[in-house]
Amino acid sequence: MQSTKVGLLGFGTIGTGVVRVLQQNQDLLACRLGNNIELVRIADLDTTTDRGVKLDAGLLTDDAQALLNDPEIQIVIELIGGYEPARTFVLQAIRNGKHVVTANKALLAMHGEEIFRAAEESGVNVLFEAAVGGGIPVISAIKENLGANNFSALYGILNGTCNYILSRMDEEGADFSEVLTDAQKQGFAEADPTFDIEGVDTAHKLALLISLCFGTKVDFDKIYTEGISKVTALDIEYARDFGYKLKLLAIGKRDGEQIEARVHPTMIPKDYPLSAISGVFNSVRMVGDFSGPVMLSGYGAGMDATASAVIGDVIAAARDQQSNIGIRSPSLGCPQAKLTSYTIKPMEQIVTSYYLRFTVKDNPGVLAQIAGALGKYEISIESMVQPHRHEAEAVPIVFMTHEAEERNVSAALAEIDQLGVTQEETLLIRVEENLE
Amino acid sequence: MQSTKVGLLGFGTIGTGVVRVLQQNQDLLACRLGNNIELVRIADLDTTTDRGVKLDAGLLTDDAQALLNDPEIQIVIELIGGYEPARTFVLQAIRNGKHVVTANKALLAMHGEEIFRAAEESGVNVLFEAAVGGGIPVISAIKENLGANNFSALYGILNGTCNYILSRMDEEGADFSEVLTDAQKQGFAEADPTFDIEGVDTAHKLALLISLCFGTKVDFDKIYTEGISKVTALDIEYARDFGYKLKLLAIGKRDGEQIEARVHPTMIPKDYPLSAISGVFNSVRMVGDFSGPVMLSGYGAGMDATASAVIGDVIAAARDQQSNIGIRSPSLGCPQAKLTSYTIKPMEQIVTSYYLRFTVKDNPGVLAQIAGALGKYEISIESMVQPHRHEAEAVPIVFMTHEAEERNVSAALAEIDQLGVTQEETLLIRVEENLE
Repeated sequence: MQSTKVGLLGFGTIGTGVVRVLQQNQDLLACRLGNNIELVRIADLDTTTDRGVKLDAGLLTDDAQALLNDPEIQIVIELIGGYEPARTFVLQAIRNGKHVVTANKALLAMHGEEIFRAAEESGVNVLFEAAVGGGIPVISAIKENLGANNFSALYGILNGTCNYILSRMDEEGADFSEVLTDAQKQGFAEADPTFDIEGVDTAHKLALLISLCFGTKVDFDKIYTEGISKVTALDIEYARDFGYKLKLLAIGKRDGEQIEARVHPTMIPKDYPLSAISGVFNSVRMVGDFSGPVMLSGYGAGMDATASAVIGDVIAAARDQQSNIGIRSPSLGCPQAKLTSYTIKPMEQIVTSYYLRFTVKDNPGVLAQIAGALGKYEISIESMVQPHRHEAEAVPIVFMTHEAEERNVSAALAEIDQLGVTQEETLLIRVEENLE
Repeated sequence: MQSTKVGLLGFGTIGTGVVRVLQQNQDLLACRLGNNIELVRIADLDTTTDRGVKLDAGLLTDDAQALLNDPEIQIVIELIGGYEPARTFVLQAIRNGKHVVTANKALLAMHGEEIFRAAEESGVNVLFEAAVGGGIPVISAIKENLGANNFSALYGILNGTCNYILSRMDEEGADFSEVLTDAQKQGFAEADPTFDIEGVDTAHKLALLISLCFGTKVDFDKIYTEGISKVTALDIEYARDFGYKLKLLAIGKRDGEQIEARVHPTMIPKDYPLSAISGVFNSVRMVGDFSGPVMLSGYGAGMDATASAVIGDVIAAARDQQSNIGIRSPSLGCPQAKLTSYTIKPMEQIVTSYYLRFTVKDNPGVLAQIAGALGKYEISIESMVQPHRHEAEAVPIVFMTHEAEERNVSAALAEIDQLGVTQEETLLIRVEENLE
């Protein structure tokens, strides 16, 4: 049996998972491909740590160049992460005519255009199923089997750390910082969790999904991104009382020649299917013009699930390598030159409902002042709760609004700030009622 | 731009949807493929009915042979349904070197081996994404992006008609026959609904999924198949009270050298994700050794969603046609010769929990007699409800058991039948507690 030769850059957690899949499911892969997948080199600066997998002598090197310039290697798996040297290595692999498989969403969200163009010029694939939604086969679904559809919207729960934290806050009534600390202890959150909890990781993934679903380039920096660190257990409790779940939701929507692209804590109706995605699970729901809504869920991270997606891409690249066809399918579903450049709709033009939590001294008249300011900007109130009455203490007042334009809500909140009645920064959480 | 030439056999509802996708999303398909998909012939015995789509003159013919023997046609879409002449036409298309795309689960469940072998011999693809789960890309997910996994189990809600009926019975407390009649009026159930409500359609789809997930041949006739026609609103109400949803569940599980393959009404925990799949939606949940559980949901039927899946397969076949590689990926994920032949575990060896509804005259001592018979066969009772007390009238008594072997439950029920205390056939519904 012939073999397809693979090189692995980066021997961390996911890299170890990749080696485990290749060793453990070797026969299955040979059956699927009629061909062996042979891992011929691993490059990592750390060549001494025991990762718990057995390697042939000489397989592991600290010399990435030896791998990138090895003419025998047909597929390079990049699992270094971050921008550099990943970008340089990926471009070099492409120029050397190797297919690239990567899980690096940050790299692709920031340097995707350069990388995908280079791949088109060299006639090789850049595959990145593992970059979005861990083990969930969402990228290939959009490009291949759902490829007949123009998509109108996509909604995603794309960060396992955030979803784990929010789920536990919901279940236990615990506060954000408390759950985060525990999540870090348990390995569900990084020592520096900023990228996850501030929504940056989710925005990276949303940028890729928007490009794929809508056939467009997305300037990652223009995606509105707000994390979950300001959410309290109280807000989650209110959400529940009002019939919602609170999720860090990635939203992509086509709106004429514009696109909504935003990541923020969002209240969604409790019987909406994404509300059932809890803990470290991820999910993407896409709405195609023929397929209707299609939802995919599974583990969004972790060694094994991510390795599953990486090897899924290796299977695809190996098939292309065997048949020697170069690029079977463009990286973003359509060639770079055919991608349109929609503009992202400014946040002030977004229309949605709002949960507004004011912290005020409970003096007579405060409620009327706030309601008055909201009314002045034509923000219609659906309901109001003022649960704790302690005269002269700082207490929360919560408003749920009907749909309003965000610019009006911002203006009203600025005006309320000027009134001098609020004791803390007012918390705004968007409420999405009409998800397909 | 070059074009890939496609012929369509069968111009019913799905066929009409296929024409609509090809017309409406022509530009998108050209962008994905760098190539046009050109529908050059449609064959159907009915050439006169207006399907609401515009066709070029001469495109529609009643002569299937003209299509099957047209050397220009590279891909044949079979949407005739049923066994014959679909089988003969599909084999002829394959022998003529054409890729085949079909939505015909009955044909593949029954004659798959013959068809897939013929395709291997001719070096063409037989693709059938639309045969299982309508618009949900489950087949390609298993074969391609999740292809690195050995699967241990799969669970599916695979028939929209049944799920619609059960969902409405749940929501409205309405009885089976009432909802069925209404579903037929609304077009959610066929005039002759037997294939759907008796579970046959679900079993066809399960046979295909088992082959794909476990790399095995499945004798369709050996799949235990039980439909939903005996379920009453009362059972659904009890299910809810006990914390379950009632679904027509397709179950495939590896168990050593055996496979569990069964379709029956099943109570599943209400917070299990498949419980949230309601109405005409379908869903498949598969458990891979590396991916963990992955769940895909969407419309399981309907003109547009099914057409989306058909054209997804046409995209794949067109890519293979362009690169002239023949079979990119075996029909069932592994070549026919490599498929193993697991035996199906006999139902009497299944171990699960049971919901047993006896209809008895409420005389003193009846409960003790039933409990005694269950105890004799080592069936441990988790709870019992006897909700309506009308002395001397026929009333239901419901038992929920702990896990037991099905042979013991059957023996106990046979013995209880002999006691002469039951007024109607006892209803047994399996309860699955430990779904991954």
